[in-house]
Amino acid sequence: MTSSTAQIGVTGLAVMGSNLARNFARNGFTVAVHNRTTAKTTALVEEFGHEGSFVAAGSAKEFVDALERPRRLIIMVKAGEPTDAVIREFAPLLEPGDVIIDGGNAHFEDTRRREKELREQGLHFVGVGISGGEEGALLGPSIMPGGSEESYASLGPLLEKISAKAADGTPCTSHVGPDGAGHFVKMVHNGIEYADMQLIAEAYHLLREVAGYSPAKIAETFRAWNKGRLDSYLIEITAEVLAHTDAATGLPFVDVVADAAEQKGTGRWTVQIALDLGVPVSGIAEAVFARAVSGHGELRTAARGLAGPQAAPLSAAAADAFAARVEQALYASKIVSYTQGFHQIQAGSEEYGWGVDPGAVASLWRGGCIIRAAFLDRIRAAYDARPELPSLLADAGFADEIGAAQDDWREVLVAAVRQGIPVPAFAASLAYYDALRSERLPAALTQGQRDFFGAHTYRRTDREGSYHTLWSGDRSEVRTA
Amino acid sequence: MTSSTAQIGVTGLAVMGSNLARNFARNGFTVAVHNRTTAKTTALVEEFGHEGSFVAAGSAKEFVDALERPRRLIIMVKAGEPTDAVIREFAPLLEPGDVIIDGGNAHFEDTRRREKELREQGLHFVGVGISGGEEGALLGPSIMPGGSEESYASLGPLLEKISAKAADGTPCTSHVGPDGAGHFVKMVHNGIEYADMQLIAEAYHLLREVAGYSPAKIAETFRAWNKGRLDSYLIEITAEVLAHTDAATGLPFVDVVADAAEQKGTGRWTVQIALDLGVPVSGIAEAVFARAVSGHGELRTAARGLAGPQAAPLSAAAADAFAARVEQALYASKIVSYTQGFHQIQAGSEEYGWGVDPGAVASLWRGGCIIRAAFLDRIRAAYDARPELPSLLADAGFADEIGAAQDDWREVLVAAVRQGIPVPAFAASLAYYDALRSERLPAALTQGQRDFFGAHTYRRTDREGSYHTLWSGDRSEVRTA
Repeated sequence: MTSSTAQIGVTGLAVMGSNLARNFARNGFTVAVHNRTTAKTTALVEEFGHEGSFVAAGSAKEFVDALERPRRLIIMVKAGEPTDAVIREFAPLLEPGDVIIDGGNAHFEDTRRREKELREQGLHFVGVGISGGEEGALLGPSIMPGGSEESYASLGPLLEKISAKAADGTPCTSHVGPDGAGHFVKMVHNGIEYADMQLIAEAYHLLREVAGYSPAKIAETFRAWNKGRLDSYLIEITAEVLAHTDAATGLPFVDVVADAAEQKGTGRWTVQIALDLGVPVSGIAEAVFARAVSGHGELRTAARGLAGPQAAPLSAAAADAFAARVEQALYASKIVSYTQGFHQIQAGSEEYGWGVDPGAVASLWRGGCIIRAAFLDRIRAAYDARPELPSLLADAGFADEIGAAQDDWREVLVAAVRQGIPVPAFAASLAYYDALRSERLPAALTQGQRDFFGAHTYRRTDREGSYHTLWSGDRSEVRTA
Repeated sequence: MTSSTAQIGVTGLAVMGSNLARNFARNGFTVAVHNRTTAKTTALVEEFGHEGSFVAAGSAKEFVDALERPRRLIIMVKAGEPTDAVIREFAPLLEPGDVIIDGGNAHFEDTRRREKELREQGLHFVGVGISGGEEGALLGPSIMPGGSEESYASLGPLLEKISAKAADGTPCTSHVGPDGAGHFVKMVHNGIEYADMQLIAEAYHLLREVAGYSPAKIAETFRAWNKGRLDSYLIEITAEVLAHTDAATGLPFVDVVADAAEQKGTGRWTVQIALDLGVPVSGIAEAVFARAVSGHGELRTAARGLAGPQAAPLSAAAADAFAARVEQALYASKIVSYTQGFHQIQAGSEEYGWGVDPGAVASLWRGGCIIRAAFLDRIRAAYDARPELPSLLADAGFADEIGAAQDDWREVLVAAVRQGIPVPAFAASLAYYDALRSERLPAALTQGQRDFFGAHTYRRTDREGSYHTLWSGDRSEVRTA
């Protein structure tokens, strides 16, 4: 029989769950652990019991009884129906004020539904986005909790202890907002991660095909970039991957890996939700599509032999100059990806009334997660300086940097287009930048067409109201609203 | 009291419904008409009774009684709950073998659900995509029916009579496939329409800013293009819109229309479903995003003053040469849009087991709908020649044309990029083309990164199986499957 001594409980002891439990224990908390099959619970305590204070619970009842009140209970099972099943199992055993935490990769709409249902039972439900993979769960992840203020008051201090810390010591977690806000922000994190990875892939492709660099030389280039403004986990590991030699063949590792990228769905979700919110996330969308294209072997085979230019590698000096331009293009495109991602966070926050602080989001992504980067300090500073910033491009610092990069950005695209290297995310980012800059967009023509074929009406630049032109009649204009 | 003399019934007599009813009557069918409020029914018969044989039904019961068996009953109400409400009203009054037809803009998933529910009651449910707007409904739309073979045997002859006819006299309708197939294909039609419109908008923007053409001169240019391979309804009406002068100001009409494009959602659906199916529809996505960007006035204001190049208009001779290149770029990008759209139709057909014939779809889009174009004859011919064509780009004719266009396509993009004109759909189309052509894609690097940070494994080019490199260990490789 257990006594109520555990500050936190974790149920679901696959790798993520057990690493998270160990992280709590290693930070001095007493952790109740529970799993559907008790063998895993026993094994965890046997193997890692020395790391801290665990309470092994054999049954749901024992698990709940082991927790201090108000109880804090983290569910670490597969997203979807398994999460609902565990909630159905535990909710009846809990008391008003207890906190159920879902640490899985839930869709934020599911989190909203669950929070509402449990709130009606007097329980707090916290949807937590956790980034950093297995290693992060153990050593310090970036944590994005969504739920009531009250639940954060109870849970926050524990999360702040186990989370990653930014270089300045700040914990990489904070209260994101109510109900689905945490899982929403985690979703956008993953979308931005897709865009970041695609931009890096395009930079690599250009350095390989246009500059004529070897993978080893590109690894060197990324290492150099990692000392500057592109300093980030993804640039760092890209250099590691590119520097790696395949033991079996002696070839560069990247040349023996099949070039069909896979995905687990959060990038797709990000784009689908952005479409619902009317937020253009073209960089993320192109990243998702690029993975899809790479995986369609049958289409790629069918397209073999389509006409295209020959890539013409540059001289060594020209190649190095080109590489410097690619750095500019990559950085400018990265600014656009984050601009789009933060626009989506602000739009989601507005749609659902979450009051998310985008600067705080940038802050908690500075450590523990896949997109951690020096760059996020800059974003936080931009929002700190102007909390109502409508777009990152409206920040004077980013505007200056992207302005200084734009000539090179354009010339990199010109080289890609002329030499037949696909750079969909670079291109989408520049088009977004140029569209926002444009005094007039051809959307006026689109509105004219829509009015012509569907009487959808249009607005005018010179006065209020909606109008329709009698296209099939005398082409006079009528005011419709 | 009515006797059962009507071959077809239409309930829901807003403009689309009443125009469709008149179309049936004008083609010699006896049409039962019904509306929630009888005033509309009476008004229709009073105003248009002379056009043919109508039976005005005051009640649901009268309406159903007026129909020959098996009954054919078309619902023309708003998509969503109103459609379900009408189905709930009529289904209990019908008999096994009767056919309920939904002519609204339903989401194909709703159509699948309704078809399944009604099938269990012994009723046929046919989801019909209808394109062509109000005028098309009256004079001959493009009609995309999805449902059982049996229902098409009963309904098809009537639809073939009232549909548009292609230049060769073929009716612009045919049995698309079971349950949601018709509404799915209509959705993709609208997605392609978005892409077509965006590509035209980009061509216009380039002719205006790079070639320095006036709207009137661009109208002339589109009229000339409309005599060639771009011959289509959208090119035709674009010329009309651009040639139009605003009476109030004397300015070109396109210059007084507010440049914020609106949308009704089917383009967005197309992209969201494509993401679920893993189909890259980057041209359609960029078209949807371009409308979104244009409508974000607050972001556009915030981006005023971002650095960019000056557009430098060309000499008259160079401008005309450039315009010819834009025609090539537009045509090549159009081939890509349709390639992506037809890929989505084939993927949807495979996912849901519909057995859609893409050549037949191209055929029925040749008349009546917004994207009607000479081009669709080419697509039909491509699929007729090779029904198993994996991609339109695999058709020798399209491959030759896009190959011949690609140099100009690239130079148009170069001009746009250097002069700061946003051409997201042109750029996305070229990137798709170049990605499919690429022998190797940087997706191999993406897979390496994913294996590094998430142990997601990768495949190799030289042997079967899934592998993981021990990145945090000695970097040896282990086979995982």
